[in-house]
Amino acid sequence: MTAVNPVTKPAAKESHVTQVRLTKRSPAYWRVTIENPPVNVMGPEMVRQFQEVISAIESDEGIRVVVFDSAVDDYFLNHSDFMARLEDLTSMPAGPTGLPPWPDFLVRLTRAPVASIALIRGRATGNGSEIALACDMAFASREKAILSQWEVGVGMVAGGGPMARLPQLIGRNRALEVLLGSDDIRGEQAEAYGYVNRALPDAELDSFVDALATRIARFDKWAIANTKRLVNTSLPPEVEIGAGWDACIASLGRTAAQNGIKALNARGFHEPGEVETRLGYYLGQIPR
Amino acid sequence: MTAVNPVTKPAAKESHVTQVRLTKRSPAYWRVTIENPPVNVMGPEMVRQFQEVISAIESDEGIRVVVFDSAVDDYFLNHSDFMARLEDLTSMPAGPTGLPPWPDFLVRLTRAPVASIALIRGRATGNGSEIALACDMAFASREKAILSQWEVGVGMVAGGGPMARLPQLIGRNRALEVLLGSDDIRGEQAEAYGYVNRALPDAELDSFVDALATRIARFDKWAIANTKRLVNTSLPPEVEIGAGWDACIASLGRTAAQNGIKALNARGFHEPGEVETRLGYYLGQIPR
Amino acid sequence: MTAVNPVTKPAAKESHVTQVRLTKRSPAYWRVTIENPPVNVMGPEMVRQFQEVISAIESDEGIRVVVFDSAVDDYFLNHSDFMARLEDLTSMPAGPTGLPPWPDFLVRLTRAPVASIALIRGRATGNGSEIALACDMAFASREKAILSQWEVGVGMVAGGGPMARLPQLIGRNRALEVLLGSDDIRGEQAEAYGYVNRALPDAELDSFVDALATRIARFDKWAIANTKRLVNTSLPPEVEIGAGWDACIASLGRTAAQNGIKALNARGFHEPGEVETRLGYYLGQIPR
Repeated sequence: MTAVNPVTKPAAKESHVTQVRLTKRSPAYWRVTIENPPVNVMGPEMVRQFQEVISAIESDEGIRVVVFDSAVDDYFLNHSDFMARLEDLTSMPAGPTGLPPWPDFLVRLTRAPVASIALIRGRATGNGSEIALACDMAFASREKAILSQWEVGVGMVAGGGPMARLPQLIGRNRALEVLLGSDDIRGEQAEAYGYVNRALPDAELDSFVDALATRIARFDKWAIANTKRLVNTSLPPEVEIGAGWDACIASLGRTAAQNGIKALNARGFHEPGEVETRLGYYLGQIPR
Repeated sequence: MTAVNPVTKPAAKESHVTQVRLTKRSPAYWRVTIENPPVNVMGPEMVRQFQEVISAIESDEGIRVVVFDSAVDDYFLNHSDFMARLEDLTSMPAGPTGLPPWPDFLVRLTRAPVASIALIRGRATGNGSEIALACDMAFASREKAILSQWEVGVGMVAGGGPMARLPQLIGRNRALEVLLGSDDIRGEQAEAYGYVNRALPDAELDSFVDALATRIARFDKWAIANTKRLVNTSLPPEVEIGAGWDACIASLGRTAAQNGIKALNARGFHEPGEVETRLGYYLGQIPR
Repeated sequence: MTAVNPVTKPAAKESHVTQVRLTKRSPAYWRVTIENPPVNVMGPEMVRQFQEVISAIESDEGIRVVVFDSAVDDYFLNHSDFMARLEDLTSMPAGPTGLPPWPDFLVRLTRAPVASIALIRGRATGNGSEIALACDMAFASREKAILSQWEVGVGMVAGGGPMARLPQLIGRNRALEVLLGSDDIRGEQAEAYGYVNRALPDAELDSFVDALATRIARFDKWAIANTKRLVNTSLPPEVEIGAGWDACIASLGRTAAQNGIKALNARGFHEPGEVETRLGYYLGQIPR
């Protein structure tokens, strides 16, 4: 999220068009669709729109289920937009939890009294993985989903809570493989590790998630909210999510991360092509 | 556990015959067999008998292993008996932990200085799932086991601790799928999620569990008890189990649960037949 | 770790040759190779050498990855050397954590600011399993790895922390199956349970681990260390590791463990052969 000598193109002016689109399939069943083509990176404007979305979810009495999906082929939600100015993000006011806007959004999503489901088709890197971890459930395309926490590979620390959330979900050993290895994890491996609930054949994914969301949307909101409230006693303390964010920002100020991002930029980062498609591989190729 | 306008039959007088049968295969290896035909629901009398069983387990010096199984075809242990009067349950005195008798039994089972194993053949819904989660281990029939926490689907909150126990066991994402989805989970899926230790071919299940129980029954009780004591440091606090029970009782007083149970009763709940066999499906069919 | 009437041979004089060999493949990528033929048991001298290794790891600024492997066929790292005098172990001074040397080593390994990987080929029993659990990741040979916590089967309690670590990693139900069942767990089952990250075909194991270690060794140490630091908030408290050690030492003073070890010794324990190869089976055969 910092402009690191963008070699291949000038810092893009960020569009204020809708990047996070809210659709109400019914009063009880909402969809949040992420759309920032061509590769669905997340800049400050998208973070601002996620803030609006979570406020809408929290203040509505009818919503019982929200599904997060993507309108961009091959990308569920990608890493941050390093062409944007870091200051545009760090200058945003803290959210109601006291955390900066991105971790604030994630923490509130986890605590919201509705069922949340990530429908993962395409790449869920960094932020995309973090939103899946913040949701109550995640279902992935067996053929098309790629999850990754790529940060250590580029010299960064992840900012949206995976150090706090992944060990509880998939065990410390596999969490450290994901985090320190920084490699791409395909749908089937993600399912085997418990990183997602299930990986489904791509052709069945939409109907499976839709059927589950429709089912839960008919159940009683009080029962959903109280069951989730009691499950949430097992969440990591929010101070851990905040500490992860602080480490992420600190990492961005270091030479290792700046050089890493610069090297990726020189090869076509943020654009459709090999680097984005095979990010795990290219992280292993950065000259150090 | 509340008489909710039983449409299809009068409130049954509860039998005081043995519903929870204790058999000592040897001084060290006990069996607890659940038998309340035709569909193995749990009413106040069964809870009282579980109290007797756990007191016997706690006070015996020779017991090292206890296996829970069922004598009723197709049902390991089912949901509560909603034809019984709720007051017959809520008026029972608290157990030694200070919790009401059902969560008291479950907590004491988890803490007992003996190995406990659930042998799951048939439906383990609500209470049946909760007893499996309270046991040290659970082995399921691949063909015949069905686990479910069905409560949210009928407008209730589960009363025996799955909100506290499932996230630790299978991860928060799969725990919320089980709890909020309220659907039937077959043996193979239960194994893949870690909900049970293993799902075995039905023809091998009995001999596998018997061999394991016989093996452990020959080991030293002090070593078993101290190993388990140290494992138990990772248990959720008992106050969470109590909070779940309170939410369950509160849910039973609400219209949503009362209407849900009434709708199931109208279709043959508590009786052999489609509703009990395919409960997950019928929860999706209740008119709201 | 106590001389329990060694029936078949005199108490061996312990060799002071190198049993834990440190090799630097590069300044950033180290190997620690365990070699105490014929069956890779761990006596006091090996514990002393593990202390040296962990001090070297902690004090070096260049190291980013350490891989633990074995130079002894069929044995990654085995149970303790019960031919050695227990006093030689218990008289060793506590390590920097305040814990005795073996749990001190394990706790420091888990907290070290480098990635640690266990490459498991052959038997990882007791200490071998414990070092795998203390490492950040573990990869096992599908054909040749055997993990086990065998202690309860011989009347002991495990001393290196599995009661604290296993429930978090594989769930309480499978942790208790491993610990109370005391049986041999093959690579494939270990993978299914999450006991190891992955089980790989034996022919691919070395190259897989080497590629991963080489990859991580090129990443930034600050990013590795800070990511791991934040993951480590989820570790069990060290006091639990200490309590496990105390229970282990107490178990060694009891008749059950002394008789169990004596019975195994009488059949060829500590020597190449059936008892070591099929330890899980023979634990079920000890006369009681």
